[in-house]
Amino acid sequence: MDDLPRVGLLGGGQLGRMLVEEANHLNIPIQVLDTPNAPAKQVHYHPKDVNGSFATAEAVRQLADECDLLTVEIEHVDTDILEEVSHGGVKIEPSWRTIRIIQDKFEQKQHLKRNHVLTAEAVVVNNMHDLESAAKALGYPLMLKARRQAYDGRGNHVVRSESDLQDAMTSLGTRGLYAERWMNFKKELAVMVVKTKDGALTYPTVETVQENSICKLVYAPARGISREVAQAARDLAKRAVQAFPGKGVFGVEMFLLDDDTVQVLEIAPRVHNSGHYTIEACGISQFAAHLRAILDLPVPEESLELEQPAVMLNILGGATPWSHQTLAERALELPKARCHLYGKGEARPGRKMGHITVTAPSLLEAERAICPLIETCDTLQRERKDIDLPPQLPQLMPSGTEIPIIGVTAGSQSDQNVLQTCYDVLSGLRIPFERRITSAHRSPELMASYAKEAEARGIKVLIAAAGGAAHLPGMVAAFSRVIPVVGLPIKPSLGDGTDSLLSMTNMPRGTPVLTVGVNNAVNAALAAARIVAMWDSELRERLIAYSGEAENESRENDRKLQAKGNS
Amino acid sequence: MDDLPRVGLLGGGQLGRMLVEEANHLNIPIQVLDTPNAPAKQVHYHPKDVNGSFATAEAVRQLADECDLLTVEIEHVDTDILEEVSHGGVKIEPSWRTIRIIQDKFEQKQHLKRNHVLTAEAVVVNNMHDLESAAKALGYPLMLKARRQAYDGRGNHVVRSESDLQDAMTSLGTRGLYAERWMNFKKELAVMVVKTKDGALTYPTVETVQENSICKLVYAPARGISREVAQAARDLAKRAVQAFPGKGVFGVEMFLLDDDTVQVLEIAPRVHNSGHYTIEACGISQFAAHLRAILDLPVPEESLELEQPAVMLNILGGATPWSHQTLAERALELPKARCHLYGKGEARPGRKMGHITVTAPSLLEAERAICPLIETCDTLQRERKDIDLPPQLPQLMPSGTEIPIIGVTAGSQSDQNVLQTCYDVLSGLRIPFERRITSAHRSPELMASYAKEAEARGIKVLIAAAGGAAHLPGMVAAFSRVIPVVGLPIKPSLGDGTDSLLSMTNMPRGTPVLTVGVNNAVNAALAAARIVAMWDSELRERLIAYSGEAENESRENDRKLQAKGNS
Repeated sequence: MDDLPRVGLLGGGQLGRMLVEEANHLNIPIQVLDTPNAPAKQVHYHPKDVNGSFATAEAVRQLADECDLLTVEIEHVDTDILEEVSHGGVKIEPSWRTIRIIQDKFEQKQHLKRNHVLTAEAVVVNNMHDLESAAKALGYPLMLKARRQAYDGRGNHVVRSESDLQDAMTSLGTRGLYAERWMNFKKELAVMVVKTKDGALTYPTVETVQENSICKLVYAPARGISREVAQAARDLAKRAVQAFPGKGVFGVEMFLLDDDTVQVLEIAPRVHNSGHYTIEACGISQFAAHLRAILDLPVPEESLELEQPAVMLNILGGATPWSHQTLAERALELPKARCHLYGKGEARPGRKMGHITVTAPSLLEAERAICPLIETCDTLQRERKDIDLPPQLPQLMPSGTEIPIIGVTAGSQSDQNVLQTCYDVLSGLRIPFERRITSAHRSPELMASYAKEAEARGIKVLIAAAGGAAHLPGMVAAFSRVIPVVGLPIKPSLGDGTDSLLSMTNMPRGTPVLTVGVNNAVNAALAAARIVAMWDSELRERLIAYSGEAENESRENDRKLQAKGNS
Repeated sequence: MDDLPRVGLLGGGQLGRMLVEEANHLNIPIQVLDTPNAPAKQVHYHPKDVNGSFATAEAVRQLADECDLLTVEIEHVDTDILEEVSHGGVKIEPSWRTIRIIQDKFEQKQHLKRNHVLTAEAVVVNNMHDLESAAKALGYPLMLKARRQAYDGRGNHVVRSESDLQDAMTSLGTRGLYAERWMNFKKELAVMVVKTKDGALTYPTVETVQENSICKLVYAPARGISREVAQAARDLAKRAVQAFPGKGVFGVEMFLLDDDTVQVLEIAPRVHNSGHYTIEACGISQFAAHLRAILDLPVPEESLELEQPAVMLNILGGATPWSHQTLAERALELPKARCHLYGKGEARPGRKMGHITVTAPSLLEAERAICPLIETCDTLQRERKDIDLPPQLPQLMPSGTEIPIIGVTAGSQSDQNVLQTCYDVLSGLRIPFERRITSAHRSPELMASYAKEAEARGIKVLIAAAGGAAHLPGMVAAFSRVIPVVGLPIKPSLGDGTDSLLSMTNMPRGTPVLTVGVNNAVNAALAAARIVAMWDSELRERLIAYSGEAENESRENDRKLQAKGNS
């Protein structure tokens, strides 16, 4: 590391800024080519930073003269000059060939197809005749897109019917275009891929939410998709990136289609907005990973996994040059929010001015924490006059509502009396929980779906109460597969409940039910509390205070008894 | 936030560098006074940074001319000039009065005493006669210390007996001195305190390990101290800082004495090496907290708590100018290690060149992860010729040994046959566990101490197996107070074990035992696995694979049976 190559960076916007911040942590020498005072230039002092445009041959040559390796924060660069300087011995990562293919989005799609990577069908459009043929082949609606220089919705036009054709050509017609088949998708997914000298590694599958064609939110991990879909997206992203030569981080945006298949929307040969969450949520950020990959420094695979779930919210320019600051100010009031401002000064409406990441032990907690910021964001965006946004959505989660982490379910309404003390203990310990009635025999489908979906909803322990045949705890344990289930036998009007107790303890090998005593709802609650307390130090303190009270009471009884005996 | 005061920073070393990095995240305008290319100046570009010394009146005046508020990364500044510019309307945070008192360590101690903050007894020493009187009053050994400009062990001299007196005076004699009573301490603790306009908040109590009088390691939270001691240290640190005017972050170093009382060693009126762990481990770092405090921006109290335990290791200069790089390179190979290099170029032996922080879900995991780096650090430090360090300690933890998170304990040796399948399942799921025999009746003291200490050792679930009277699970649950206990009844040679099972489920309200079926060691293991899996996504995948195998086997049996029936 005392002899690192000198890195030159084409582009000094927010992506470059965050790359420079990571370079600072490791004393990696890096020079930036962009306009004076560009965001990346503000966060280091390098006398050989180059002023100019990353799209100008002369400026790139000047940067290359002082560097051993060039990399990019943007794909809209002049690849001819990159090719030229590479012949002069300067390394380019990722390869200029990769950037050249990717910057032409139609070429990118063709390249993916040649490499058997699923992506929407597309045809070249050079004139109205081509567009009409494309409409016949692809049907309506379709997307008409510029092949180059298109980002954040610019250069895209939706063609809904024949009557839109002329408008589409008029709005985009001076550039090379292509038409793309319209895909119905459930949600948009993204995966950051790290290509090192040894192969490709992936960050987790995240969900991106766009508004007005600009990324608004990123959920890491993606919400409400199965493990299989999440893995399929990672595999697809990896295969897509493996089709391109060169090292570094790539962003792969994907559609999750209605039939649960995944297809590639587009690839960025660089760090990407959908990977900002990695700064706080992963062992190493996408920015650190990019620098390590291009410099052949180690990238431990485990470092790319989520340490904590996260939600990222972009700070976009509002109606006035400084209105976006309101969002940053609100973020400072939230304990779990980290704010990154990009040093861009006054905002244009819709411009990316910064971002906020909230991390939490579960995604639901992170979602809940970021709710007030999304509200502020929506209010600010709806003040804009330059665009029409849909009316503000109702809040995702009412504030003040806690995400339950313990689920208490009973076989019947008649169990509620016994369960009251369980609810009281959980409330007293300030553990968020939910109450359900899901009968193994009367509502088996509900019971099964409740148990299957609980883990994804953030439930960490299930308490299942049942009397008689008392199948509920065992069935919930079977359907949930991974959640620990505390079984609470309920005493029937006839008999002592031992039969229910034994039907819980006698579960076959493979599917445990953790059984407490008959009607001992207090212990069911305390056992569940102990479980979650092992990962929550504040709850541990409250549990200890709880047992301290019981101890004091017991000691006090002893004292009174002695006092009585001695009187 | 669009109208923040212009901040001027006296000193641009590593502390200033990390302050500037946080200022960058919020676009806080900050100007640095230090030599050209000082660490803090490398990580931003500010045309009005001042070249010179923070101890020179002219340079400070120049900085103050361009700023609304001055703050410090070092206390060895000229407080007369700070007083002067404050009269000119520039705010100083913390107050120049605070810095003036603290920079004279004897005055600092007197000030603490006047404010009833516990600290070691001290007397002024101006000459040999004073020192002899001090030795009579304080006894041997004693510490002779310079009142000013002392740090990292410089300016301190241990006086072990009368024969050391002359040496001590000779080595320190040209400066104002004081003698301090020698304190026997168990360990050194530290707490970072944030003083805002609304009051003082504290970060958690951490443990610092010094070597050769320089901070080597910081453990957050402190290891092996009770909750009460940890809280007492936070309370003491808070009271100590409340005795000084001004806003900002303060570092409070303390001794934990043999009698478990805590006393203040010294206070730094600034961010501190013992708070570096906050960058990764807390909601907001000490550097962000300092900027927020002096600028009256919000500091949510919850943001100061640990999100994850952490261990910090300093990267110190080694025998050659670049040998410390070896440690940084090793850190890049570890998934959980974050490396911060300070941009100081070539190292002097012992100089702070950077630091590494490892975070993990438990402190033991963090300790284990950082072990190889401590080894590398020790090897590098022992190559130095300028100091004598004690021989390298044996590794804290043998590498390859996993920290157990499940404890399996049985009442007797005869239970081991049944427990074998429990061990097999845990091993198969790659969950680190330990096996113990702690009998409630034969080794009650061992049983009690095992249960009481398990939480601090990182155990998340206890499995307790017992037959007959089967008191072990209940007693372990009582002594551990917070750990979930899975009770496994063991079938005796006579009888079916139901008596043991009932003695576990019949635990009184307040102390739950989570009971599985008689001899069902597989379910005891799987239940414990489900518990820890809720906080470990990779283990969840393995558990699902495990249940998938059982499902496949069951389906296969069905297929075979049908095939047989049809043939």
